[in-house]
Amino acid sequence: MPRILKSRSRKTGLPPGSLVYVGDKRTAAPKLTAFKYSPTGYEERELKNVENCAELRDPSAVLWVNLDGVDHVDTVSQLGRQFGIHAMVLEDILNTSQRPKKQLSSDYIFMVAKMLYLDPQRRIQVEQVSIVFGRNFVLSFQEEPDSDVFDRVRESIRKNIGAIRTGGADFLAYALLDSIVDQYFVILEEFGERLEAIEQQVINRPELGSSKAIHGLKRDVLFLRRSIWPLREVATSFERSENPLIRPGSMIYFRDVYDHVIEVIDILELFREMVSSMLELYLSSVNNRINEVMKVLTIVTTIFMPLTLIAGIYGMNFDNMPELHWHFGYVWALGLMLLSALVMVGYFRRRRWL
Amino acid sequence: MPRILKSRSRKTGLPPGSLVYVGDKRTAAPKLTAFKYSPTGYEERELKNVENCAELRDPSAVLWVNLDGVDHVDTVSQLGRQFGIHAMVLEDILNTSQRPKKQLSSDYIFMVAKMLYLDPQRRIQVEQVSIVFGRNFVLSFQEEPDSDVFDRVRESIRKNIGAIRTGGADFLAYALLDSIVDQYFVILEEFGERLEAIEQQVINRPELGSSKAIHGLKRDVLFLRRSIWPLREVATSFERSENPLIRPGSMIYFRDVYDHVIEVIDILELFREMVSSMLELYLSSVNNRINEVMKVLTIVTTIFMPLTLIAGIYGMNFDNMPELHWHFGYVWALGLMLLSALVMVGYFRRRRWL
Amino acid sequence: MPRILKSRSRKTGLPPGSLVYVGDKRTAAPKLTAFKYSPTGYEERELKNVENCAELRDPSAVLWVNLDGVDHVDTVSQLGRQFGIHAMVLEDILNTSQRPKKQLSSDYIFMVAKMLYLDPQRRIQVEQVSIVFGRNFVLSFQEEPDSDVFDRVRESIRKNIGAIRTGGADFLAYALLDSIVDQYFVILEEFGERLEAIEQQVINRPELGSSKAIHGLKRDVLFLRRSIWPLREVATSFERSENPLIRPGSMIYFRDVYDHVIEVIDILELFREMVSSMLELYLSSVNNRINEVMKVLTIVTTIFMPLTLIAGIYGMNFDNMPELHWHFGYVWALGLMLLSALVMVGYFRRRRWL
Amino acid sequence: MPRILKSRSRKTGLPPGSLVYVGDKRTAAPKLTAFKYSPTGYEERELKNVENCAELRDPSAVLWVNLDGVDHVDTVSQLGRQFGIHAMVLEDILNTSQRPKKQLSSDYIFMVAKMLYLDPQRRIQVEQVSIVFGRNFVLSFQEEPDSDVFDRVRESIRKNIGAIRTGGADFLAYALLDSIVDQYFVILEEFGERLEAIEQQVINRPELGSSKAIHGLKRDVLFLRRSIWPLREVATSFERSENPLIRPGSMIYFRDVYDHVIEVIDILELFREMVSSMLELYLSSVNNRINEVMKVLTIVTTIFMPLTLIAGIYGMNFDNMPELHWHFGYVWALGLMLLSALVMVGYFRRRRWL
Amino acid sequence: MPRILKSRSRKTGLPPGSLVYVGDKRTAAPKLTAFKYSPTGYEERELKNVENCAELRDPSAVLWVNLDGVDHVDTVSQLGRQFGIHAMVLEDILNTSQRPKKQLSSDYIFMVAKMLYLDPQRRIQVEQVSIVFGRNFVLSFQEEPDSDVFDRVRESIRKNIGAIRTGGADFLAYALLDSIVDQYFVILEEFGERLEAIEQQVINRPELGSSKAIHGLKRDVLFLRRSIWPLREVATSFERSENPLIRPGSMIYFRDVYDHVIEVIDILELFREMVSSMLELYLSSVNNRINEVMKVLTIVTTIFMPLTLIAGIYGMNFDNMPELHWHFGYVWALGLMLLSALVMVGYFRRRRWL
Repeated sequence: MPRILKSRSRKTGLPPGSLVYVGDKRTAAPKLTAFKYSPTGYEERELKNVENCAELRDPSAVLWVNLDGVDHVDTVSQLGRQFGIHAMVLEDILNTSQRPKKQLSSDYIFMVAKMLYLDPQRRIQVEQVSIVFGRNFVLSFQEEPDSDVFDRVRESIRKNIGAIRTGGADFLAYALLDSIVDQYFVILEEFGERLEAIEQQVINRPELGSSKAIHGLKRDVLFLRRSIWPLREVATSFERSENPLIRPGSMIYFRDVYDHVIEVIDILELFREMVSSMLELYLSSVNNRINEVMKVLTIVTTIFMPLTLIAGIYGMNFDNMPELHWHFGYVWALGLMLLSALVMVGYFRRRRWL
Repeated sequence: MPRILKSRSRKTGLPPGSLVYVGDKRTAAPKLTAFKYSPTGYEERELKNVENCAELRDPSAVLWVNLDGVDHVDTVSQLGRQFGIHAMVLEDILNTSQRPKKQLSSDYIFMVAKMLYLDPQRRIQVEQVSIVFGRNFVLSFQEEPDSDVFDRVRESIRKNIGAIRTGGADFLAYALLDSIVDQYFVILEEFGERLEAIEQQVINRPELGSSKAIHGLKRDVLFLRRSIWPLREVATSFERSENPLIRPGSMIYFRDVYDHVIEVIDILELFREMVSSMLELYLSSVNNRINEVMKVLTIVTTIFMPLTLIAGIYGMNFDNMPELHWHFGYVWALGLMLLSALVMVGYFRRRRWL
Repeated sequence: MPRILKSRSRKTGLPPGSLVYVGDKRTAAPKLTAFKYSPTGYEERELKNVENCAELRDPSAVLWVNLDGVDHVDTVSQLGRQFGIHAMVLEDILNTSQRPKKQLSSDYIFMVAKMLYLDPQRRIQVEQVSIVFGRNFVLSFQEEPDSDVFDRVRESIRKNIGAIRTGGADFLAYALLDSIVDQYFVILEEFGERLEAIEQQVINRPELGSSKAIHGLKRDVLFLRRSIWPLREVATSFERSENPLIRPGSMIYFRDVYDHVIEVIDILELFREMVSSMLELYLSSVNNRINEVMKVLTIVTTIFMPLTLIAGIYGMNFDNMPELHWHFGYVWALGLMLLSALVMVGYFRRRRWL
Repeated sequence: MPRILKSRSRKTGLPPGSLVYVGDKRTAAPKLTAFKYSPTGYEERELKNVENCAELRDPSAVLWVNLDGVDHVDTVSQLGRQFGIHAMVLEDILNTSQRPKKQLSSDYIFMVAKMLYLDPQRRIQVEQVSIVFGRNFVLSFQEEPDSDVFDRVRESIRKNIGAIRTGGADFLAYALLDSIVDQYFVILEEFGERLEAIEQQVINRPELGSSKAIHGLKRDVLFLRRSIWPLREVATSFERSENPLIRPGSMIYFRDVYDHVIEVIDILELFREMVSSMLELYLSSVNNRINEVMKVLTIVTTIFMPLTLIAGIYGMNFDNMPELHWHFGYVWALGLMLLSALVMVGYFRRRRWL
Repeated sequence: MPRILKSRSRKTGLPPGSLVYVGDKRTAAPKLTAFKYSPTGYEERELKNVENCAELRDPSAVLWVNLDGVDHVDTVSQLGRQFGIHAMVLEDILNTSQRPKKQLSSDYIFMVAKMLYLDPQRRIQVEQVSIVFGRNFVLSFQEEPDSDVFDRVRESIRKNIGAIRTGGADFLAYALLDSIVDQYFVILEEFGERLEAIEQQVINRPELGSSKAIHGLKRDVLFLRRSIWPLREVATSFERSENPLIRPGSMIYFRDVYDHVIEVIDILELFREMVSSMLELYLSSVNNRINEVMKVLTIVTTIFMPLTLIAGIYGMNFDNMPELHWHFGYVWALGLMLLSALVMVGYFRRRRWL
């Protein structure tokens, strides 16, 4: 089950705060991109190394640094040092089997979320995104560049769409989180279509092997739930907390993300129950078919056994069997068979088996 | 599953606050109707365009504007500008896959609820209604005009029935919510009758394909639950909050709506459990019938196999078979068969299979 | 399902606060009885009309008016006016599909509970009782006179048993509620006996159609739960609230009612789980019997098929079949059959099927 | 189900506060024993009647009166009067179907718990114990003397073991409660062994009628849960409450009882899930055996039917059947049969049925 | 079920606070090791007896004493006396069937956790670890030395890795707890691999006896849950409590342990649901196979019975059977058989059974 449980064992045995990457995928090289923007302008740059960040920091602008490839432990730890991130937080960023969570510090807020996307085989995949934001900077950490969902945010900054350039670091953090959650709806739609297709099959042609398909759906729902459910707590915590890093005007946006997360969870619970209901439908249809098959067997056996017996009786070799010498003996025997068959058919009709 | 999950994917990729309609149905043209009333009189008007609202606003009267056709994004955004509604709220109004919710602002309260109705094929359908109310105005947004349940409120205003004309905007908002919730009981009654009909069938004639019908019921219960359950939080929040927009005298009414929502949810939970119980009954009756069919098969086989064997034995062609030459050999064989059959019948009687 | 969902549809479409009776039963005429008592004496009277109440009101005595027949809307609304009851409360009193609840007002406390009783066919029936009590009056509203459980309270007043005459209106309200809850235990005992009888049948003679009986039990448990469960909140609320209408000395009594309600709910939950367990037992016993029947069929088939084959072989008409001409050919064939049967029986013995 | 629901009906119809015994067992005579102790000494006495208590009361010592036989209503009510216990509390003491609970009063604390023990047939039985303790007295009420678990406490007093003689009435109450809860572990061990024995049987020899045994286990778990679960609230309440009757130094002891109760409930929940899992295992093993039996039947039928047909064909009496006159016709027929059988066996081998 | 319920009965009947060992394993001799460290250095010593501790205590250094072998009651009680531990706490340390818990005192904090490890047969085993820490000492109690997971902590002290030497007693306690929780991930990975292997088997070759394997998984999940779940409360309590024994700087570490425990519990819940889903898949695949077997039986029976009847009819011995004397009578009979078989095959094709 590599998808559900990433190997953490290589971490066991190390002292706490040790920076070790936990995860499957490996990228060739880390990719660092920086956006620096203020209401009046923006600058976009690909960074060669972490030191370049220093020259971009500017109290009157927001700096967003995005890293693709958290498996490069050195880059992560250098970034951490540059922005004053605690070693325990860096450890969580490097552990891609991390549960979605949020952690407050006096200087920054740290969030972990799961990004969902479809791989080329249209299987649902998950990737961890960590976001750290302080007064005028946002750091985002992704596992690999392919599954990026932040393009819409980049476009907003470039074209100065909506409130993003005036919104500060907290608004940017919201916009990133919102992109991730919006992507969930795409995945849920895809999943909903699959679910409906299998449901139609269970209803119309249950003889095809649906139980494995239903099990697959259930596994996916469990997997999605594990990725999304803890985000609920993250979203709630924004509402409750009064943190100077989140300006009052941004609260309505975080509240909106919360509403979306709740909606996603609602839909997931609905899917879960529909999968259960499909399984029950499938099981009862299997039993129904067993019943149908049994009826055919019983009807055939019950009709033919007496006929075979009659044929057997008149095949006996007794010297003294009067019917054998009747002129219409054969017709009599066939008539007896017909009668027996008709009686049986009548019986099954009355029991509503036919 | 178009009914359960409306396509939101066209929204993904847009910056937050973008006004995009999410939903299936499309209406030809938006229909705007306005009611302006005070304890002493009322005025009812169909509005050509949103600008006409301005001339109706009057601090001493309550203005209720109802829009049929939220798919007309322009009309919604103009209304929003006129009444000072936040862009995020307008976004929620346009998203007809929204979860029932309530949101407070200093100037207005925003609620989303689901309206249920039966379509011509008597299937349960859902439509989203958004209500925004401030100090002396109420805006209501519906998807289409056909399923309107507000006629009773209109009638109350026209005929000055009850406290409606003296009640202010909060009372009108309550009256609209109450109409929606009252309609739920009609749907639940319809559903309860279906459930009872299928239950009677499961008890009396389980051989008819009931498992699909039960699955359909379960799907409907899940669907209803998804539409109604979140309204519970909405209703609770009225009780808790002390909002200047809701006058103390109106609290008892919102409390009443809350009681009704709880009752609806109670009934839904009851239905859910009854559907589960029906499925169990159905499954056990299928198994019982398998058992019945198996018994018939076993009885027939067990009685006829020995008879066939006896006939087979006396049909053997050995030179030296004394019974074949007895005068009453044939009668002996038939007697043997009768005896065998009687023994078997006796055995099944003792086992209570017959 | 008339028992579970009373038709409320005739109410839909009316403005809130409209007084309409919701329920099935109709009584010929309302029956009004009044008790006026103080520590020193009591007066019992049957009232012709509601106006007579006025002359009985007396600040130094407690007045208890009981109405049998809430379907008489006029009587209820007149009583309401006399004692200053809010229109929304009267609406709830008239709606006999009301959920048990409690509502506070500055002048009175309003409670709804469900009275359970056995009808002549020993089916469990429910009736709604509404109790309104203020500083020195108690009103009780019942659907019909037959199922009355308040006789024990009347007797206490007449014979001055216990603290009732000195206890004030709150104590009387408690005593009425206590009578209703005590009656639940009688119903639960009856139900427990039924449950045990069906359980014995499932264990000893599962072939009788128990699945319908179990389904009936489950339906009854669901029904009882719906009637009783919300009373829990009612009972809790007494403990929490500090209401001048309830004197500190009465708190221990309301606490006692609460304990009983919790106990009733506990027992109901227990019944629910026992019914589930019985269903599982029943299902596994059905499957066990299928298994038994299958074994008999398989044993019979497996023993007789080879015998029939042997008989068939020696019934073939080949010219050259040496065995047919052996002197002991017939005995040989029968011996072969016996051997085959013994081998099969041995095989089934070893598999523990026999 | 006499064990689960004791008849309370004889109580219905009596005014609240009436002292009536509710329970099954009857003892010949009440047995009153008293312990009076202080750090310096102790006195143990069997009391003839309740009045003797008066002379034992002494503000500088703790008095513990234990009554075996709560069915003697007079003795209970006299004790109540002596120690100033409220009538509602006495009513609860007499009602042996009482739910475990705790009630505070300014002068004493009242607790009800369930004592579990094995009867001579090793069935789990329950008995109610009520404990009332005040500043320097403890009253304990048991149903009958046989199942007493307080001997260890008596021994501690006599031999002055641990803190008991210096601990005051609250410590004694704790010690009694602790004895009851400790006894639960004995019962759970016994139950766990039974559960394991039945589990072994389900795994190794499921053909023996295990479904009734599993149902019995489930019934017992439900029964134990009902007896123990409410004690959780009792134990929690000690921690929360700041009652002058419980000295700060005793808190750690009551906390310990709470931990044990939680542990017992944990184990019970575990048992419950194990019983469910066993039932699932049993059901799937029954289905597996049905499958096995079906396979045997199908294999036998499928092998022998073609053979019987071949024999039947060569038993036909047509004038013109060349094979009948072949010299090796008989061998040919037998060879045909062998071939057919081998083909079938090969087919089943390939399907892995053999 | 020795693994799930350790025998506590030998404790029943003893006064509270009696020090008795509850558990299965016995070690030859207790093993006491001590670490004394400060930021500037460390000293590691194996202690012969408890008295040696006294000389190691030093207010400017942290002293960690680890005991392997809690079955040596004397050693535990001597340690307790040395460090001023309450008798009730010592009782909990000696009871190895203790539930994970945390207890505060003014001088120390006491925690119980369960250590998981794989025994040589790769079965999951559990061992209790108790940790008591005060201002500058930490005591840890283990059942036996083999399953020790604290080596990584020892290594950190020796090599002065991370913050351990400067962190104080609370940091050491955290490090020990963290080692235990980290070990859980190793066990979960092992378990996840087993689960996946069995899942593959259920999907690909369900005919192998999987139901016992699934039951085993379920039992293990229940067992793991019982060991880990209560640790959640322990971990939460650190966050809530403001205890002078835990310095503010250590809070982030305990918070990290809490996150890990929640993650472990999440994974366990996921495993639980996957096991349930596997069982459902298995059950439906068994039913599917019953259906398959039944179909084969029915097809064979339905095809051969008519053929056997035709053979039987032409095996009858009537004098007057015209077909018998036809020249192509035999061919006619075989043709009839072929036709009948083809009709049947066609019928099964149409029903999609073939």
